[in-house]
Amino acid sequence: MNYRMIVYIMGQILRIVGLCMLLPIAVGAMFGESHVIASFGIPSLITILISILFTLKKPCNTAVFSMEGFVSVAASWIAMSAIGAMPFVISGEIPNYIDALFETVSGFTTTGSTILSDVEKMSRACMFWRAFTHWLGGMGVLMFVLAVMSSNDVRTMHMMRAECPGPNVGRLVSKSSFSARILYGIYLALTLAEIIILVILKMPLFDAVIHAFSSAGTGGFSLWNDSIGHYNSPAIEMVVAVFIILFGINFNLYYFIIIRRFSLVFKNEELRAYLGIIAASTAVITLSVIHQYSSVLEALRRVFFMVASTITSTGFATADTAQWPVFSQTLLLMLMFIGSCAGSTGGGMKVSRILIIVKTGVRELKYIVSPRAVAAVKLDGKPVEKDVIRGASNYLIIFAVIFAASFLLISHDKYTIEESFSAVATCINNIGFGVGRFGPTGNFGGLDAFSKLVLCFDMLVGRLEIYPLIMLFAARKV
Amino acid sequence: MNYRMIVYIMGQILRIVGLCMLLPIAVGAMFGESHVIASFGIPSLITILISILFTLKKPCNTAVFSMEGFVSVAASWIAMSAIGAMPFVISGEIPNYIDALFETVSGFTTTGSTILSDVEKMSRACMFWRAFTHWLGGMGVLMFVLAVMSSNDVRTMHMMRAECPGPNVGRLVSKSSFSARILYGIYLALTLAEIIILVILKMPLFDAVIHAFSSAGTGGFSLWNDSIGHYNSPAIEMVVAVFIILFGINFNLYYFIIIRRFSLVFKNEELRAYLGIIAASTAVITLSVIHQYSSVLEALRRVFFMVASTITSTGFATADTAQWPVFSQTLLLMLMFIGSCAGSTGGGMKVSRILIIVKTGVRELKYIVSPRAVAAVKLDGKPVEKDVIRGASNYLIIFAVIFAASFLLISHDKYTIEESFSAVATCINNIGFGVGRFGPTGNFGGLDAFSKLVLCFDMLVGRLEIYPLIMLFAARKV
Repeated sequence: MNYRMIVYIMGQILRIVGLCMLLPIAVGAMFGESHVIASFGIPSLITILISILFTLKKPCNTAVFSMEGFVSVAASWIAMSAIGAMPFVISGEIPNYIDALFETVSGFTTTGSTILSDVEKMSRACMFWRAFTHWLGGMGVLMFVLAVMSSNDVRTMHMMRAECPGPNVGRLVSKSSFSARILYGIYLALTLAEIIILVILKMPLFDAVIHAFSSAGTGGFSLWNDSIGHYNSPAIEMVVAVFIILFGINFNLYYFIIIRRFSLVFKNEELRAYLGIIAASTAVITLSVIHQYSSVLEALRRVFFMVASTITSTGFATADTAQWPVFSQTLLLMLMFIGSCAGSTGGGMKVSRILIIVKTGVRELKYIVSPRAVAAVKLDGKPVEKDVIRGASNYLIIFAVIFAASFLLISHDKYTIEESFSAVATCINNIGFGVGRFGPTGNFGGLDAFSKLVLCFDMLVGRLEIYPLIMLFAARKV
Repeated sequence: MNYRMIVYIMGQILRIVGLCMLLPIAVGAMFGESHVIASFGIPSLITILISILFTLKKPCNTAVFSMEGFVSVAASWIAMSAIGAMPFVISGEIPNYIDALFETVSGFTTTGSTILSDVEKMSRACMFWRAFTHWLGGMGVLMFVLAVMSSNDVRTMHMMRAECPGPNVGRLVSKSSFSARILYGIYLALTLAEIIILVILKMPLFDAVIHAFSSAGTGGFSLWNDSIGHYNSPAIEMVVAVFIILFGINFNLYYFIIIRRFSLVFKNEELRAYLGIIAASTAVITLSVIHQYSSVLEALRRVFFMVASTITSTGFATADTAQWPVFSQTLLLMLMFIGSCAGSTGGGMKVSRILIIVKTGVRELKYIVSPRAVAAVKLDGKPVEKDVIRGASNYLIIFAVIFAASFLLISHDKYTIEESFSAVATCINNIGFGVGRFGPTGNFGGLDAFSKLVLCFDMLVGRLEIYPLIMLFAARKV
């Protein structure tokens, strides 16, 4: 393995993180928060120094294959979480380091689970940093490095694969740094659009920025304990719901719209399935809860928001779903596992992977009936490559094994089976809240340090889609 | 499809069921129960008449392929459940037909879930029939037909595959009717051994027969509300535990012992994994509950019994596991899904399937690290065929889809998410009890008719391992 190149890539990523930590200093200064120089300045300085050390000399051998890509991405995500947690500790707002680490991993992986019982006490600078980790983690920090690097290196594809969610990454254009720039451009434009619309709807600018970051990464951190519900504004609720659904769509499709290849968008099976599932779930759940609300329109709005928030794994809550019929709660639970589109900022198993898995299952049944007539599994009208099918099936297997192991490890803690199960489900799918003491009004602060670390691993496994993390720990043997 | 042959096979199976219904009449006569002639005689007569009608003329074309095998087994299991439920209704002991159907499906599939709140009120004849469905369903009624048929038909393998659990069926000897006879011989011998030992331990003969039937099928029906705990005898508890573990082992291995090919038994990876899991789980759980019992030995005994009862999906309960630490409960929950060995009477996903799935996952990880060096997945030192690997992966997929769909369908009923989940888990894995109102002291009587039918489907899917049931419903399209 090319360790020098891994260190070099890590250096590049850490420089971005170090520079990003200067942003909260500006925010803190604006709001007259004096502690920010120490809280953010020191870790930022250390990070930038490390990054300079790591990138002093470009390795002669720049070969990067799957293994190097996976390992450098996994190591970078762990390093940036470890560093990103420091400001919370130095400022004293989250004094325990494990807690701060949990919060930061939850931020970067866009999970949105918190260990805080009262978010509103936090300083503006820390709030900004917390939401900013969502934004940076949503599209991926390596993608950011690629966007600013001018390297013309085809081999960076291996790294993009490691950070980009979903069963298959289709490169937009031949130069991956250029694709990364296009993706980040679209991401930035959508985020700005949301900020502007929220400000027009009379949300304060700072609030709008935080919620736009949180929506963009489909994360779920808010600056209010009662989340988006705080504004009590149907218009804001609808705007946020529409934007999180937009952020849950494969970003390649936006590029296709820009270059006017609309047919590719309309033909996209994953998009149709994704929107179809949202529409169907909203309709079915609305019917089941209609009697709990004053009007059909209110029920529809509440349900639509919760469906969008759940399937995209954002985890904003505006309705107490524990009051809904068990059938509706079960449907929401399934949406958590299905997740959003591949190549989006959303979590879960991804719609396209579910499509491939279900189609493979149907094919297996056909195979048993008549072994000679095996049709190929197709997506978007084209046969899916064997490797992709195998990858999707095996993803499910490894996902199930990690899920079971984490569930068992967490169960030693002082929570019920149901709560432990929901904690693992919410972390591995990057959603944000579970049930019981981990519900929308609860938090993860009561877990012991070991459980928190297991859940940190699960969040990273969920965000990076399993392989990079395992590669990192298997690296020594290869 | 060869419909005439399917009808002919169904006729053969129904004849056995009809004849078996004469046994409870003898039992009822012994205990002076007068209702038995009507309750069991009428359905028995009808069934035998139908079977004669179905087998009047042997079809000219006796070709039986996978499809015919699957469909005839699925149709027969549904028909024999429908018929087997009649005595409960006619005798008035389970007046509602859907309830009686649920009880009978639960019996034949060796699930052991009950809709009765008080088992002890039942007549001896009905109790016997209830336990006998476990015994017949455990090894499979089609297998019974093969055992008594003297046909020298190689094609019957297709039918054995449909009823025999596990990823792969290895035929013992070239004549399948002869293998079926050997398997039933071993099954009968083990059952008799258990009856004799239980009687020696001072259990009344009738009780011993019921519990031996129930252990043999790894079902779980007892004649007492407090199950095996009723006797309050450590010796009985241990004997039953050892026997259900024996019934959870692949029956081919007993044949190998008989023909003195001991090396095949020692080399068997599934057996080692199965016994290893039992030993490890017993040790770990005992450590966690040691303080709840008066002595280490008592804790060990209670835990060993519950581990054996759970992994073999029997569902006898002698300890209130709800009082155990959540960690131990979670471990038991996982044992439910793992299940026992292929080719045994136990339920769950089967140890060998889990082994193949885990090994495939490990291979996938190796493949990602270095795509050129892919080792074959091996079991018992031999490479596993591609079709078997694909089958195991796809089994997991189809299992997950059916699980999710059933969970959603059940959730409309008046139970909590946790209870609904446990109801599907216990039925699809053929265990017998779940949590909350479906726990060891609860029952399934409170569900509505629709939910009961969904769970009947799940129990059949679990026992017949998915494919036959789906084939039956897909049959018309082929």
